[in-house]
Amino acid sequence: MSCCHHYFAPGQGGDDAFTIDASTMTFGAGCLKEAGDQASALGMTRIALFTDPHVRTLPPVAAVIASLRAAGLDHVVYDEVAVEPTDASLQAAARFAQEGRFDGFISVGGGSVMDTCKAANLYATYPAEFLTYVNAPVGGGQPVPGPVKPHIACPTTSGTGSEATGIAIFFLRAMQSKTGIQSRRLRPSTALIDPSVAATLPANVVAATGFDALSHSLESLTAVSYRKRAPAARPSQRPPSQGANPWSDMVAAEALRLIGKHLVRAVRDPADFEARTEMLYAATLGGIAFANAGCHLPHGMSYAVSGMVKDDTRFAGYPSASPMVPHGMSVVLNAPSVYRYTACACPDRHLHGAECLGADVRGAAPEDAGEIVAGRLIELMQATGIPNGLAAIGFGAADVDGLTDRAFPQKRVINNAPRAVSREDLAGLFGGAMRYW
Amino acid sequence: MSCCHHYFAPGQGGDDAFTIDASTMTFGAGCLKEAGDQASALGMTRIALFTDPHVRTLPPVAAVIASLRAAGLDHVVYDEVAVEPTDASLQAAARFAQEGRFDGFISVGGGSVMDTCKAANLYATYPAEFLTYVNAPVGGGQPVPGPVKPHIACPTTSGTGSEATGIAIFFLRAMQSKTGIQSRRLRPSTALIDPSVAATLPANVVAATGFDALSHSLESLTAVSYRKRAPAARPSQRPPSQGANPWSDMVAAEALRLIGKHLVRAVRDPADFEARTEMLYAATLGGIAFANAGCHLPHGMSYAVSGMVKDDTRFAGYPSASPMVPHGMSVVLNAPSVYRYTACACPDRHLHGAECLGADVRGAAPEDAGEIVAGRLIELMQATGIPNGLAAIGFGAADVDGLTDRAFPQKRVINNAPRAVSREDLAGLFGGAMRYW
Repeated sequence: MSCCHHYFAPGQGGDDAFTIDASTMTFGAGCLKEAGDQASALGMTRIALFTDPHVRTLPPVAAVIASLRAAGLDHVVYDEVAVEPTDASLQAAARFAQEGRFDGFISVGGGSVMDTCKAANLYATYPAEFLTYVNAPVGGGQPVPGPVKPHIACPTTSGTGSEATGIAIFFLRAMQSKTGIQSRRLRPSTALIDPSVAATLPANVVAATGFDALSHSLESLTAVSYRKRAPAARPSQRPPSQGANPWSDMVAAEALRLIGKHLVRAVRDPADFEARTEMLYAATLGGIAFANAGCHLPHGMSYAVSGMVKDDTRFAGYPSASPMVPHGMSVVLNAPSVYRYTACACPDRHLHGAECLGADVRGAAPEDAGEIVAGRLIELMQATGIPNGLAAIGFGAADVDGLTDRAFPQKRVINNAPRAVSREDLAGLFGGAMRYW
Repeated sequence: MSCCHHYFAPGQGGDDAFTIDASTMTFGAGCLKEAGDQASALGMTRIALFTDPHVRTLPPVAAVIASLRAAGLDHVVYDEVAVEPTDASLQAAARFAQEGRFDGFISVGGGSVMDTCKAANLYATYPAEFLTYVNAPVGGGQPVPGPVKPHIACPTTSGTGSEATGIAIFFLRAMQSKTGIQSRRLRPSTALIDPSVAATLPANVVAATGFDALSHSLESLTAVSYRKRAPAARPSQRPPSQGANPWSDMVAAEALRLIGKHLVRAVRDPADFEARTEMLYAATLGGIAFANAGCHLPHGMSYAVSGMVKDDTRFAGYPSASPMVPHGMSVVLNAPSVYRYTACACPDRHLHGAECLGADVRGAAPEDAGEIVAGRLIELMQATGIPNGLAAIGFGAADVDGLTDRAFPQKRVINNAPRAVSREDLAGLFGGAMRYW
């Protein structure tokens, strides 16, 4: 592999080991009909089925419910998941989970649904003041005390990869920014990933979630080496965001190859079953990659962008009741600016990522790496209708300070970047993300 | 990827989905010192520590014991594991496990130790007549009834990948052949893979175990597609040997690339820490590959070769009390003959495997695939001191019938081959494995 991390060379001042894992997952058209059998095998008898008001009406929920009924399993549907979960919506979900005394959870939806289900399972199993488990320094950063109840995740979009991670992201109102809870213990017990869910996704959703998957993979591939991150206080609590390692490199590269080939086709043609299936598979790989390496700046900056969304921001395919930037879009809008800055820290890894995405890197010099990555991302953004930078969704120079204030405390992701970032650097990255073409 | 399986095309007459998983695993020099913390995190308080009489005296066992002591964890060592486990040795180990009332298991050793520990854990947790869980048609093929106790696997050789699989292989005396028990539930809870164990391995052991890892990977890559295998009776019991799929393809190809680069260096120079580290990592990848796809003919045939080992067969680096062929050697001796036969079923997958191993496949025609794979394997065998075919370890034409009798019932692996094999075909494959150069 093209790689400037010499993972196995002695004495690099950081952790000497990395910990990898992946959920048990089943992938294939029609596999939602396995829900009842898989739930029984996990010992579930009384199930909380999490979804959102929109997905509730769609065939995937019907398929899961039919399968649970056929297996004779008791279930209660909770469809009040907010599309952008907040501390309040997570707490409401946790109350439902606690009061229902369930012995298993199933989530059917996108990242919001799966993340809400993880948090509800956690707080129902180990009740605590809400900030207890939230990432430090925003929250208490306490480790999850023990195993949570079994959870089957059934993604209905091809992006978040949440089915493969122990991470739950939400909007913390007091901070006006996104943050999260992360623990390997929150990783779903298993996942049912059924490509037939992708056939009816609106093009905008395929594009935004596709860029989320792309970013999970490219951020994992370009993250700082685990050999340069300080060891966890206890090895058994090595965090998912431990830095790049040989396992996440392999998975991320494979995801980028699939996304480079299939993203544009999947966005443009809902009938292209192969492209949409490959994107769903790539999204799961992206989830496995960042569950084992961690994201960095594009994600960290996106939390601030979402937090400062402009009042008139709406996108087709997403709920219109309140303004929102689709998560994957808020991530990729920062990405070209970030890679122009980080490439010098490990140019060959950036070039490797660009090549996996389909860029021609023959004869490229190390100093070209940032521009080559940015160029390939911009091509893909243009081909899939992504707005032209933060300015195109209403941000301007006057917002840079506020964006920086919200993003700079996101140490979990900021410290995972391959190049150190001061507050001033970060402001420069937001400035560079305003307009790309 | 170069691939002749169109996994996601509709209607192929077999299973529509595949199930993937991977143990949580920690990889890195010195990570055996995490044993105490990882055992505590898994809730272990009274631990059965499995090893064999040789490994018992080596630093890895000392490192694990020191770590358990530091964590204040009670443990009892069982060092009576046989280097080639038999039904009798597994039953003895199971009695020890049952009588000791342990709440956790740690295995430190090669495949024999890890496999014995899996079986002991199973029969101690769910006591049953021995053949109950053994693969059908040899045994009852009953599913493992529920979760077994937590198990931390610590491999000390770079080959079996047993730390990543739910498979335990042993020699069944009544049948005079190897067979096994397989269930995803037997997969160790976690693994500690510490490359410092590889520094003192004898060259012969690095070669034989390295070819085992190579074979796990190449058999996974060339196995029949999961879309052509009949679905499991219950989806939650989809077997590890479910056939090739996109996940096992990715992992197997990565393992083959690492093995192609590092096997010969690792065998020839014990001081080449990088090569031995990469081989250990590749062996784990090989385990993940075959734990998700399954092996086929070279492994199936090896069980018969081991069962008919000649009285004067001994190898440096292995116990000399009784005759034995190192497992990886008994596998690779069949491999060139097998791939010459199977290549026509999916030539581009065979070429892809050969290319990953370092063969030059430019301009190769499909009909060259078998010879190219065989040629690259033979080069690697010659470079690492592997004997010249079955004849070089005492087998001859008169043994072909006996070998075929023992291998043909191994349906778990035979049915996973990309090309159907009659009893006569199988005899031909043994004949073709007698001598290669």
